[in-house]
Amino acid sequence: MEAGLLVPSSPSSSSLSSPPPVILTQDELKKIAAYKAVEYVESGMVLGLGTGSTAKHAVDRIGELLRQGKLKNIVGIPTSKKTHEQAVSLGIPLSDLDSYPVVDLAIDGADEVDPCLNLVKGRGGSLLREKMVEGACKKFIVIVDESKMVEYVGGSGLAMPVEIIPFCWKFTASRLKKLFEDSGCVAKLRTFGEKDEPFVTDNGNYIVDLYFKKSIGDLKAASDAILQLAGVVEHGMFIDMATTVIVAGELGITVKNKK
Amino acid sequence: MEAGLLVPSSPSSSSLSSPPPVILTQDELKKIAAYKAVEYVESGMVLGLGTGSTAKHAVDRIGELLRQGKLKNIVGIPTSKKTHEQAVSLGIPLSDLDSYPVVDLAIDGADEVDPCLNLVKGRGGSLLREKMVEGACKKFIVIVDESKMVEYVGGSGLAMPVEIIPFCWKFTASRLKKLFEDSGCVAKLRTFGEKDEPFVTDNGNYIVDLYFKKSIGDLKAASDAILQLAGVVEHGMFIDMATTVIVAGELGITVKNKK
Repeated sequence: MEAGLLVPSSPSSSSLSSPPPVILTQDELKKIAAYKAVEYVESGMVLGLGTGSTAKHAVDRIGELLRQGKLKNIVGIPTSKKTHEQAVSLGIPLSDLDSYPVVDLAIDGADEVDPCLNLVKGRGGSLLREKMVEGACKKFIVIVDESKMVEYVGGSGLAMPVEIIPFCWKFTASRLKKLFEDSGCVAKLRTFGEKDEPFVTDNGNYIVDLYFKKSIGDLKAASDAILQLAGVVEHGMFIDMATTVIVAGELGITVKNKK
Repeated sequence: MEAGLLVPSSPSSSSLSSPPPVILTQDELKKIAAYKAVEYVESGMVLGLGTGSTAKHAVDRIGELLRQGKLKNIVGIPTSKKTHEQAVSLGIPLSDLDSYPVVDLAIDGADEVDPCLNLVKGRGGSLLREKMVEGACKKFIVIVDESKMVEYVGGSGLAMPVEIIPFCWKFTASRLKKLFEDSGCVAKLRTFGEKDEPFVTDNGNYIVDLYFKKSIGDLKAASDAILQLAGVVEHGMFIDMATTVIVAGELGITVKNKK
């Protein structure tokens, strides 16, 4: 094992303890963080199941432990249709927030994590359902590889997504851009495919990706200003929500707890 | 003409100056307020066209004046699919906020008007599009009959509607109720038809109607708290948006301007 790489000590670590390549791939780091997070799962829990390439590893692992009988009586609350399908294929019993309004623990990835453990999420497009489920959690563990750590929200140069209603989306996009003019904001409708069709969320909405040239300052004020725009449904900043962030890097795993 | 009833002095008033019944119906009062508001319309304006039984009279009147050639070069921005259809049938040229991000004047009804000219809207179900259009207006005239004037938002005992995404609506409804527990809040999903199916907005969302037993206090704080709930799209409080409110009552028309 590479010196300094703290592989989880759970039964899961065996599959990772064979000599690793000198440089771990990003996906391997994601898997290490995900497996570490699943160590927090206990039988009988109601679990928020995240969405995206990192969360997928956690959901796979939960499925594996259920199959092995090492976890029992789990109820999963998926944060997207995609995760719902994955969980069904793994045989994880599922329900929703209407039946389980309090969730014991959620595990999910993030696109950015700032020094105060504020997150940007939703590049995968399911920020709204994630925020509903993860906002209902007693404990919310975020799993990332070290490339996701940023100095400030938007600091990676990647998108901060905002879910908006399709009606007059150009108008809403231009109002969003104007809100953050001082931060050099660019607003782009998220599209997909060769024809650049609008990407549509699980809730039938569009996503406008905001790019910032510099920090937007007070996140709470920014959040309120965004949400006050009629036409905005939700944004991808998860402020003061994560209770633990597990970061997997070349030199090992770091666990950061909310102060 | 009944003493004290100030019928508009525009050319439109002729149709109203025949001896009215001693007691005007609520619909007649709505029509008087609507016609008065349309006196503010000038040729060349971009106009927000409201939705509901009172706004309908204003849209009818605008169509009439266009047909008569008394108004020209109007562009209407409808606030609902229903108003869109009405305006098309009247031959009013239409566009949207994407093409006309600044609207000269909007005319719309309201369900409640408080002493500071804050409104409750959306019992007709189109609060979101109304708020987008009316938030983009230089001037926003609200037309109501006197039964809509209240001491405080919710004071009529009728609903303050909140548009929410269908996903886990029960969860969102219960969080809304909890926000206003101290005001004796009751939250009901809006339904229609014999089978009590959920009412679906033009944007594909549900409406939860909130009923308050007493004032909810600071409206701005209440607004932020509602919008911060993931799952909420928009609410029916139009705070600090109306520039003029025209109230038609048995004793005449009152015009209230924002201070």
